[in-house]
Amino acid sequence: MNEFELIRRLTASLPGNNTVVTGPGDDCAVLDLGLPGRLVLFKTDAVVEGIHFTREAAPEKIGHKALGRCLSDVAAMAGEPTAALITLALPPHFDPAFVAAIYDGMNALARRHGVAIVGGETTTNPERILISVALLGVVARDRCVGRSGARAGDAIFVSGELGGSRAGRHLEFEPRLAEARWLAGHFTVHAMIDISDGLAGDLRHLLEAGKVGAELLKSAIPISRAARAQARAESSTQPPLLAALTDGEDFELLFTLAARDAVPLADAWRKAFPGVKLSCIGKITPEPGLRLRDKEGVRPFTGHGYVHFA
Amino acid sequence: MNEFELIRRLTASLPGNNTVVTGPGDDCAVLDLGLPGRLVLFKTDAVVEGIHFTREAAPEKIGHKALGRCLSDVAAMAGEPTAALITLALPPHFDPAFVAAIYDGMNALARRHGVAIVGGETTTNPERILISVALLGVVARDRCVGRSGARAGDAIFVSGELGGSRAGRHLEFEPRLAEARWLAGHFTVHAMIDISDGLAGDLRHLLEAGKVGAELLKSAIPISRAARAQARAESSTQPPLLAALTDGEDFELLFTLAARDAVPLADAWRKAFPGVKLSCIGKITPEPGLRLRDKEGVRPFTGHGYVHFA
Repeated sequence: MNEFELIRRLTASLPGNNTVVTGPGDDCAVLDLGLPGRLVLFKTDAVVEGIHFTREAAPEKIGHKALGRCLSDVAAMAGEPTAALITLALPPHFDPAFVAAIYDGMNALARRHGVAIVGGETTTNPERILISVALLGVVARDRCVGRSGARAGDAIFVSGELGGSRAGRHLEFEPRLAEARWLAGHFTVHAMIDISDGLAGDLRHLLEAGKVGAELLKSAIPISRAARAQARAESSTQPPLLAALTDGEDFELLFTLAARDAVPLADAWRKAFPGVKLSCIGKITPEPGLRLRDKEGVRPFTGHGYVHFA
Repeated sequence: MNEFELIRRLTASLPGNNTVVTGPGDDCAVLDLGLPGRLVLFKTDAVVEGIHFTREAAPEKIGHKALGRCLSDVAAMAGEPTAALITLALPPHFDPAFVAAIYDGMNALARRHGVAIVGGETTTNPERILISVALLGVVARDRCVGRSGARAGDAIFVSGELGGSRAGRHLEFEPRLAEARWLAGHFTVHAMIDISDGLAGDLRHLLEAGKVGAELLKSAIPISRAARAQARAESSTQPPLLAALTDGEDFELLFTLAARDAVPLADAWRKAFPGVKLSCIGKITPEPGLRLRDKEGVRPFTGHGYVHFA
């Protein structure tokens, strides 16, 4: 039983109430608390030493990553993050300076995005550091973007460049909050997700939620310099395209909108965010499944992104 | 450096914003998101195998406790819990039935209190189970009760009976949500906290927040049957009064209100909650510190509740 199978089983009979707009299965839960014009976004995410970071990583970057992952999920709903609570589970006899530096990294990122850190707790996890972040955000009722709205014929876009994040970017990425809010403010985005499990894995989440398929143009997938360098340096490493499809932890935006909006979006994005690449990588199809097109034709892609517990 | 010293250091320079009504240092963070007539409560709490429960405990009770601790914090602000996210950090090769039973315990408690479970995540913690719960609630703007409002002359009340919770109650307590909402709806409660670290420890938090002291009447402190049985059974065990003062994990309400309200409250409570004991255990004093009075006089009490990392 892997993570996704367990989650399916656990989420089959969860208690709800009349505040729930979106429960499990999207980047954030969405709640209607009666806020005029706005919905509330609610998200938690944990990073664990030895799995999401090593003790050798700079503690500021560990803190940055712990909060950044949650912020990226709020970005994926086109929301605005408001307040975070931090749970630090630490081995006994931890170094207070190390913990303070974790907070320095979180605080700096929170300040850049206007997020208040309103508390949390420290507890004991004897063998390793675990940091869980809970985040509240808000989003205009008519701009909240979920995973499930992709339609056949939609153009598929991805921000930034993909693959090779383990070379450093997974600890340094800047969540695409401004870009996502701009997007939802200027275009009708049908579906959006942030790439945490790899382009292929997260695109599949989006396709399953929308009951559609996708055809990606191989040459259009933006491969990061890190993924190319990695492929050159290590002969055993996967080719850079496969890295871009499956590495995970890119924390870029993956979204779809009507094909007629594709060119206007590309033009407007270039002006709004000249430093951030935006790539149209393919189209949504009515047939389910994920296919790759190159000059030799179209083939199904069966590789996966990172699956926890696999 | 113990938990409280670390927290003091970390909370000295956290980023804020204009939604923050109460940041770190109360039972919940309080946010003003613009909800007409109401404030938002935000809380996280984690339980760790080997510290807050053992693998021998019934998994339903582990789930119950994990959610119940957060609910008790919302009760301490006289709030109403709305939605929870659950983070399950598990060793690899966990037993899915065990995890499903943890959820059964949480779901049952959530249903009783109208709380939606709107998602969360599973991740890996190789050596032990860790469950972190994030909870959102709401409270009427004029009924939110913090820790800091105790005034000299106030009567101090505690619900239920204290001590000996490790004999089982720490896994079975029912958070005092209905009682706390009734209290704030019918009386002007000056300060409230839930007892998680022991009566002495949590009363000290309340005294420090209000810059006051307290004198408790020894004979008025409600000692649980479990604490008495424990004292009889084990010759090495602390006396039952000390257990009631310091054991922790009672999850009862500790609060103060004007002395003139003490008798009307006791009468009304008996009618509203005939099955739940309510005890007036002492009074707030202008002099700081915690003192115990018995027939021989008044003595300072310097014992502490449970201190993490101590």
